[in-house]
Amino acid sequence: MESELIRHLRERISADPRAPLGLSDDAAVLHLASPGCMVTSDLLTDGVDFHLDEVDLRRVGHKSLAVNLSDLAAMASRPIAAIVSLVLPRSDGLQIAKQLYDGMLPLAERFDVAVAGGDTNSWDGRLVISVTAIGELPARGPLTRSGAKAGDAIIVTGAFGGSILSRHLDVEPRVREALLLHERYQLHAGIDVSDGLALDLSRLCTESGCGAVVELDAVPIHEDARRLAAQKADGRTALEHALGDGEDFELILAVPTDDAERMLSDQPLDVPLTRIGQFIAEPGLWQGDADGNRRPLEPTGYEHRL
Amino acid sequence: MESELIRHLRERISADPRAPLGLSDDAAVLHLASPGCMVTSDLLTDGVDFHLDEVDLRRVGHKSLAVNLSDLAAMASRPIAAIVSLVLPRSDGLQIAKQLYDGMLPLAERFDVAVAGGDTNSWDGRLVISVTAIGELPARGPLTRSGAKAGDAIIVTGAFGGSILSRHLDVEPRVREALLLHERYQLHAGIDVSDGLALDLSRLCTESGCGAVVELDAVPIHEDARRLAAQKADGRTALEHALGDGEDFELILAVPTDDAERMLSDQPLDVPLTRIGQFIAEPGLWQGDADGNRRPLEPTGYEHRL
Repeated sequence: MESELIRHLRERISADPRAPLGLSDDAAVLHLASPGCMVTSDLLTDGVDFHLDEVDLRRVGHKSLAVNLSDLAAMASRPIAAIVSLVLPRSDGLQIAKQLYDGMLPLAERFDVAVAGGDTNSWDGRLVISVTAIGELPARGPLTRSGAKAGDAIIVTGAFGGSILSRHLDVEPRVREALLLHERYQLHAGIDVSDGLALDLSRLCTESGCGAVVELDAVPIHEDARRLAAQKADGRTALEHALGDGEDFELILAVPTDDAERMLSDQPLDVPLTRIGQFIAEPGLWQGDADGNRRPLEPTGYEHRL
Repeated sequence: MESELIRHLRERISADPRAPLGLSDDAAVLHLASPGCMVTSDLLTDGVDFHLDEVDLRRVGHKSLAVNLSDLAAMASRPIAAIVSLVLPRSDGLQIAKQLYDGMLPLAERFDVAVAGGDTNSWDGRLVISVTAIGELPARGPLTRSGAKAGDAIIVTGAFGGSILSRHLDVEPRVREALLLHERYQLHAGIDVSDGLALDLSRLCTESGCGAVVELDAVPIHEDARRLAAQKADGRTALEHALGDGEDFELILAVPTDDAERMLSDQPLDVPLTRIGQFIAEPGLWQGDADGNRRPLEPTGYEHRL
């Protein structure tokens, strides 16, 4: 019964002064630092994002919150609260819910996020997890997808590709990284890589009304991408995995050149910052070489189809 | 494709200065009147809340937003924005999404709610609609479930029962009513009736640490409850339908006696306000008669089971 889950959660979740009416009222109260906030929402579904019978549900719970925190990170917003809605299978629903929260709550605690209630239904269909996260409006304004300018460096955090081997569940949202960079350097635009480095970069270009030239030699390739390429399952190279696999949840940033140079020399994060190319006035996604030649680059990645 | 739905919505939804980054970024920006807000979330699922093959999906879209606005109304919070997440069946997903929004957007416009983006997935399962609504923190503070005091009158808006005959989809959230009452009168506690008049009243009592005596003769019975009882499908009386059917989305309020008398004499709303009993110190739900005798009253209604 839903009331049993609420009792369970009341024991697990300590009262948060920012969300004092968390689990007992029709709506939760959130106290904010300023008269504004940022909101994002992401769904995970059994059979698409994970397979219920094959996975540790705590990892799924972790991911369901982490992908939302990654969306807030992409806009340099500090997360405050998350609203969790579950559609549970009738069989074992309560146990499933508890395991999901067992994965979610440590992450919420680590990022100081109040889990502020939500809705819980059950049905004879498969598990659906819908999380909505709310973050602060950054003092310098949110980082958007639309601010990249021709000449800006394309800077990325971390490395790309092969996340399906396991990282795709153990998402580490780049929240602290985004907040630090947004505070110390001038950033023109940002996006997190959920669907693919090339595809998400092309989306940022579209919203900014510009294009991008990627220096393929500079793309940081994750060890997982090399392992996946070595398995030769689909004949794709490690670089192709890095460009199109997605679910890396790293950041792509548009940074003016002076700040980019400073940032690359400082390397202020625990993960590497790498310059992989440059935004240009001409629309489209391009691959460039050291001699300044360029050819079209396909915006590979995962397109959600309806 | 998700991008086609986003294009469709960008044409339909006019730019809202309170949510300027609605559909194009990782998160939406919300500008608020004060440094605080209220958040609620409700799910509707095919097969539980409606039957996809039998229903006008615009009514389902309307309801999915309306039940969230009703939750905000229960706390006297003015709605500002809604985040809509859809899990669509693969077949006809885009058409389904458009019809849902066709039902949702006129309601959003009527209550001045910005539809601020969300997530859209598809799968080979059935339709799930998850809406999260955000409202203002009321200047007088939110109305909660926990403030009822012994001696307070139990005041309800509208009439109850038989909503399944059709009203359960055409929910009219009592937002304006709640805001007006909260501004003009002293209210101690409130809840909206989603699961049943008796059950939701008993929940309010539990959170307030008190009990309630209901004068059964005073309960406003909806015409739909009488029609349903006349059909004798399950042998329940019109009153039993009024107490336990739920999905009326009317308000139950705990009001100090002086304000209750003033409110009942003013009748300031388009819907009737009715006193149906009194909160008492002794816990539990009771039925009372004119002679002051009382017997236990079962908290009938719809319990969500996991």
